[in-house]
Formats: sequence, C-alpha cells, structure tokens
Amino acid sequence: MTSQIVADGGVSTAGTTGDERDLRLRSEVDQPSSPVARFTDEPLRLDSGQWLDSWQIAYQTYGTLNADKTNAILLCHALTGDQHAANTHPLTGRPGWWSEMVGPGRPVDTDHFFVICSNVVGGCAGTTGPASMNPRSGRPYGLDMPVVTIADMVRAQVQLIDRLGIDTLFAVVGGSMGGMQVLEWGASYPDRVFAAMPIATGPRHSPQNIGFHEVGRQAIMADPEWHSGRYLEMDTKPRSGLSVARMAAHITYVSEAALHRKFGRNLQDREDITYGFDADFQIESYLRYQGSTFVDRFDANSYLYLTRAMDYFDLADDHGGFLANAFQRTRARWLVVSFTSDWLFPTSESRAIVRALNGAAAQVSFMEFVSDKGHDAFLLEEPEFHRAARGFLTGAAIARGIEPPGAAI
Amino acid sequence: MTSQIVADGGVSTAGTTGDERDLRLRSEVDQPSSPVARFTDEPLRLDSGQWLDSWQIAYQTYGTLNADKTNAILLCHALTGDQHAANTHPLTGRPGWWSEMVGPGRPVDTDHFFVICSNVVGGCAGTTGPASMNPRSGRPYGLDMPVVTIADMVRAQVQLIDRLGIDTLFAVVGGSMGGMQVLEWGASYPDRVFAAMPIATGPRHSPQNIGFHEVGRQAIMADPEWHSGRYLEMDTKPRSGLSVARMAAHITYVSEAALHRKFGRNLQDREDITYGFDADFQIESYLRYQGSTFVDRFDANSYLYLTRAMDYFDLADDHGGFLANAFQRTRARWLVVSFTSDWLFPTSESRAIVRALNGAAAQVSFMEFVSDKGHDAFLLEEPEFHRAARGFLTGAAIARGIEPPGAAI
Repeated sequence: MTSQIVADGGVSTAGTTGDERDLRLRSEVDQPSSPVARFTDEPLRLDSGQWLDSWQIAYQTYGTLNADKTNAILLCHALTGDQHAANTHPLTGRPGWWSEMVGPGRPVDTDHFFVICSNVVGGCAGTTGPASMNPRSGRPYGLDMPVVTIADMVRAQVQLIDRLGIDTLFAVVGGSMGGMQVLEWGASYPDRVFAAMPIATGPRHSPQNIGFHEVGRQAIMADPEWHSGRYLEMDTKPRSGLSVARMAAHITYVSEAALHRKFGRNLQDREDITYGFDADFQIESYLRYQGSTFVDRFDANSYLYLTRAMDYFDLADDHGGFLANAFQRTRARWLVVSFTSDWLFPTSESRAIVRALNGAAAQVSFMEFVSDKGHDAFLLEEPEFHRAARGFLTGAAIARGIEPPGAAI
Repeated sequence: MTSQIVADGGVSTAGTTGDERDLRLRSEVDQPSSPVARFTDEPLRLDSGQWLDSWQIAYQTYGTLNADKTNAILLCHALTGDQHAANTHPLTGRPGWWSEMVGPGRPVDTDHFFVICSNVVGGCAGTTGPASMNPRSGRPYGLDMPVVTIADMVRAQVQLIDRLGIDTLFAVVGGSMGGMQVLEWGASYPDRVFAAMPIATGPRHSPQNIGFHEVGRQAIMADPEWHSGRYLEMDTKPRSGLSVARMAAHITYVSEAALHRKFGRNLQDREDITYGFDADFQIESYLRYQGSTFVDRFDANSYLYLTRAMDYFDLADDHGGFLANAFQRTRARWLVVSFTSDWLFPTSESRAIVRALNGAAAQVSFMEFVSDKGHDAFLLEEPEFHRAARGFLTGAAIARGIEPPGAAI
C-alpha cells in the first residue's frame, strides 16, 4: 500500500458563494475526495440495538504499511474534525487539522509509520451520517439515522482496519472525542492495540460539558430552517442555529488567559465603542467568524449526533461502574496527556484515567503540559507535547521491533 | 418614610397560560406593582451622549429611614434581577432574589436599615427600558432605546436617591452586575457612599464573558420572532432565542463541582438512555427549565441591553487606564467579596479591585469564601459570607454613629 496524500484535494473557498459551498459540503458527504470503504454486506451493529445495513467509511492514509503490517497508527478525530488530518482540506483549502503533528519528520512520522485517519460514523465528511443518503428511503437520513456512540465509531474503525488487512494497530492516538475513541479501543480491543495515547479527554462526559452541548443542540433545533432535521431536502440549513452552537462551543475550547492574550478588550476596526449591538470587540468579531465559517464545512445534524455520542460516553458505566475494569485486559503502553489550561477536559479527568489504568496494572505514563491555549492546545504548536509524543512513539516502536523514526539516519 | 414591603405582591403562576404570563410581564414594564419615581422634567443623561427626557425608575424599600437619613442601604441587582430583592415576586410568586440576605434580623437587617432596591435603567420590571413605551413614538422603544451603561444605571439611582431626600448612602451593596454598580458609585460619587460591598464582580468585563454574552445576543437576534426588536408590537417574542441565551448563561453561573454534586450524569425520569435527543440527563432537563421559565419573566431586548452594559464596563479605561485612579477620592469603607468556585468573576478579578483600592489608600477588606456554588453563591445560603456581611455592616454602623443591628437587644 502506498501513500495516499491527496495533495490536490485542497480548493480555496475564496470567491465561492454560500450555495457553492453548500454543494461542495453535500458532495463530500456521499462522494468524498478521499478513499472510501463501502460495506454493503457487512452491517454495522450499533449500541442502540439498530444496525446500519449498508454503510461507508471515508479515510485518508499517509506513509507506507510495512510488510509485517505492524506500523499502522490510527488517528481518531475530534468533534468537528474529519479524515483530513494531514492533507489540504477539500472544503476549506486549509492544512489538515493535525498537520502540526503528522507528516514526514513530524512526531507522528509518516516516513516510518502508516497513518490512517477515518471520518467517524455520524460525521459528514464521507462516512455514513445523518446527511448521507438513506438507502431505504432514497433521501438523506436526517433524524432517521440511528443515534451512534463512541463505541459504534470504534466498531466501524475496526471494520475498516479489517478491510485494510491490519490485525494489530501499532498505536491509536486522538484528542478530545478522539481520545474517547482511544479509550474505547484500549478497553474493547485490547489485543489489537500496541500503544495508546488519549489526549485532552475524559472517561465520561461531565454534566457541564453535556450542558454546553445541549445549548448547542437547542440552538440548532430552535432554528426554523432546521425543519425537524429535513433541511437538506428543502435546500436550506439552520445556519444561525449551528453558528450559535459553534460560538458557544468555541469559547470552551480556549482558555480565559488565551482570550486575554489574543483579544483582551480590544476593539474591532474602531476607535471607540459604538453604543450598539455590532461586534465592537475583537472577541465578538472572532466568534461570529468562527460560527459563520463552521456552517460552510459542517452538517448541523451531524453536530447533533456527534455531541450526543460524546454525552453518552461513560466508560466506567459500561464496565460495572468501575473504570479500572474497563482496562483489565489491556496490554498496551499508554501515554495519557492533558494541558493545564484545558477547562473542557481538565487534568483531573486525565488523572481518573491514569488511576484506572494503574488500578488495572497497565503500563502507563502521564504528562500534563503547561499551556495557556486551553483545550485546543492539542491541535496547536506545543513543542514539549510534540517531543513527548515523538518519544513515546519511538520507544514503543523499539519495543514493537519495528524500525523507529530516526533509526535510518 | 415607612416600610413598603409588598406582602401581597406575589401571585402564583401555577395554572396560568403563556399569554397570561406575557400580559403580566408587560404590565410590570409600565405599571409595576412596586413604587415608581417618574422623572418628566429631569432628563437622564446617558454615556452615549443621548438623553432620556421622560423616564421612570421602579423600586422597593424595606425598613424605615431614620430621622438623620443616615441608615439607607442601596442594593444593586444583577443582570436578571430586579427591585424585588426581599418581597414575593409579582410574576413568579417566589421569594425575592436576596431574601436570604435581606429582611428583619437578616445580615442586611431591615429592623435597623432602610433598604432601597431599584430596577436598573434598561431593565424590564418598571424602570425605563427597551420594552417601555417610547413617549415620542407611542410604541415600545425596542432598539430605539439608547444603549445604557453601568454608569447610566448609577446616574439614574442617584436621581432616585435625590428624590427620596437622601444625601449619603450608608452602604451600597451588590453582586455581579450589581457589584459593577457598587464600584461605579464608589468611583463617581465618593462623597455619597459611607460603605461599599462589591461582591463576585470585576473592574471590567473579561473577553470570555463578553463572548458568552455575544452568544446569547446572537441566539436572540437569530430568532425570527425577534423581528429586529419589534416583537412586542407583533404580540410575539423570541422565546427560543432567549431560552438558549439563558441556558448558556446559566452554565456560567454554577461551578462544575456543583453540577457534579447536583446532577452528575443522572438520568431524568428514565432507567436508561434513549438514544435520541430528548432530555435524557437531569442537567439537560434542568437547563431547559431554566430557559423556558426565564422567558416568562424577562424581556429579550432588556437582555441585549443589560449584557451590553456589562460588556462595556471598564472602570480603569474610564480613568486614564489606571484602576487606582478610579478610587482616588473614595472615603468609603470597602469589603470586597469573592467565592472560590466562581469562574465567571474569579477571585483574581476581586484582587484587582483590592489592589486598586489599596493603591488609592482606601480602607478595604477582602474576603474570599470557600464555596462550590459558583458565581451564584452570592445569592444562596452561604453562612460565612452572611456573617461577614453582617459584621461589616455592623462595624460600619458603629463608625457612622447609627444604632447598629443588635444594639437594641
């Protein structure tokens, strides 16, 4: 298998209209610009008891799978991420969400590892989700899509890995919702994971986080353009609702310190306040921009489904109420990562994971990095974190008996 | 002047319809069930440069003003509060927002002090605001109401105090947006305040807090029922938008620890998750309730105006960029109060106030109370805080030479 970096997949959105952007977004849903694995005879079992009879999963790969198939790393993306971890994004034309971390010579070194990143079930970038065509009705699923869980996402990834002929993943790595998937992999597929790195995540979604998600969902569902989830058939979308949801969520992704540093109370293109409701402050202008651009690249129903999957995640509850039970069978090496200013998944959540892994006598390291970048730190340039990730993967590669990064030099 | 506790002002809302509740809310706007001071020949100057030519301020009083008029305490309410601090609320039928703190024998002891609480300018409980009738047009102001600031609120209170014949307030006390008013009183009317107690507040609104306010405003203005602020004339209101705004804000009023303690991941009236978008979790049900009941007692445009007033508050900026300058002329005794789990106005904000007061050689005490109740702690039963408030007011009463609480026993 060879590298499949989609170098020409990026298309600038400059000068495109809202309608054109909507068409592109819809095109990526069913016919993504990345490889797709289609499962027409291998239904996907869901936690809800429902099945997806015919479904697909969109993915990207970077680097080359070795002959023993022992160097595959699965990256699990976060709530609004997708499979485009390290290639130009087909809708936004911007670098992939983890291009700081993944690539030739990067901490997740594609010169040495075969990196896979797939869009989650329930997503909107080519894997089956609420915007996908429902084969039974011939129209988009909308709310007829069964609700999915983190475990369902992982079950779909397992089927993809099987399809790719990979038995054991060298590593599973991801942050936030991606970190939940890493935990689920370690708990449910202990024989198929050699190393695991959950980042900026928690073993269950907190009531505060459920609350913020519920605010976002209510904003979407209150938008008359949502049409009970049937907006695609009506050639519209709940722009305002999704934008408000994104604005509220975005505040939780950054730290108060970073907002002070980046924006403070600076005014936006004006000398003085206007005594009105325009975006006088840079922080207002910034949030409005975050909201409006998000609408161009994300499906509102997917936002409902993926936030719900996170809300439902409670790994201890799935294992008799004891988190350590979830990890009884793990044989993986673990590196648990948190950031000091992350208030969405504070370090206490990572400590709970580490305690449980220790309680299960697992091989676990834990690193908390000092950063003022909040939850989003894991996506940004954080040299110490990147060095630690590189070191962890290099050590694991030696233990796994595969050529470690840098060994060829 | 005698006590004006409106003991029969409370009307249960049980069994009332949404239309009836809307009518009551609108009735309180122009003809509140509390005393009103009307100013037809004394225009109110606003920071924006505009004037309110004819305006009114609704207020409650509790206790008796002494002969020297030296025992008056002004309570300043928070964003969604009103003048009904210690009486049954005319719309909700519930106790006033500070009935824990204010009353006979309470820390703010109405057996000894004459307590005044007025609805802020821009509010919707009887003081002139965007829901009030615009005398020039004969229809509700809507967005024709000039934007107001914290200083404007205080300027209106000064005119009320003048009308009541009170020269110097014994104390000005308030939390959150009320605390901002306390700071403004101390800074702009140093000769008229003997003691000041700003609680759970800050000297300027932080970018994070501006961000949360902007989310709420965008939610309201995105609601088609908002009609560019003209909803009252169309006999409707942006229920969904205001509800979402309240839900988002409410999360910021409580601590994560309190949400864990009160709700955790408990389910609402069900044994298991439903794999859907109903309110499976108690926290969801709670937030939806907070949103929907808020709509019955608050005007959406008022929410826009009052959040904007808080955003604009920056006391240092009003005084050459140096907060200490704001307090150069203060002669008041100050007690600055914060709560450990308040993340909307964290203790660091109070410390900034204390530093500035010390920098101005003011007489200042500072107390941070351990509580897991978050920002709302100041409204709730917090015995240590209440003891401190009582002690501060008693000490100040002795210094002021008025009969202190407990002296008569």
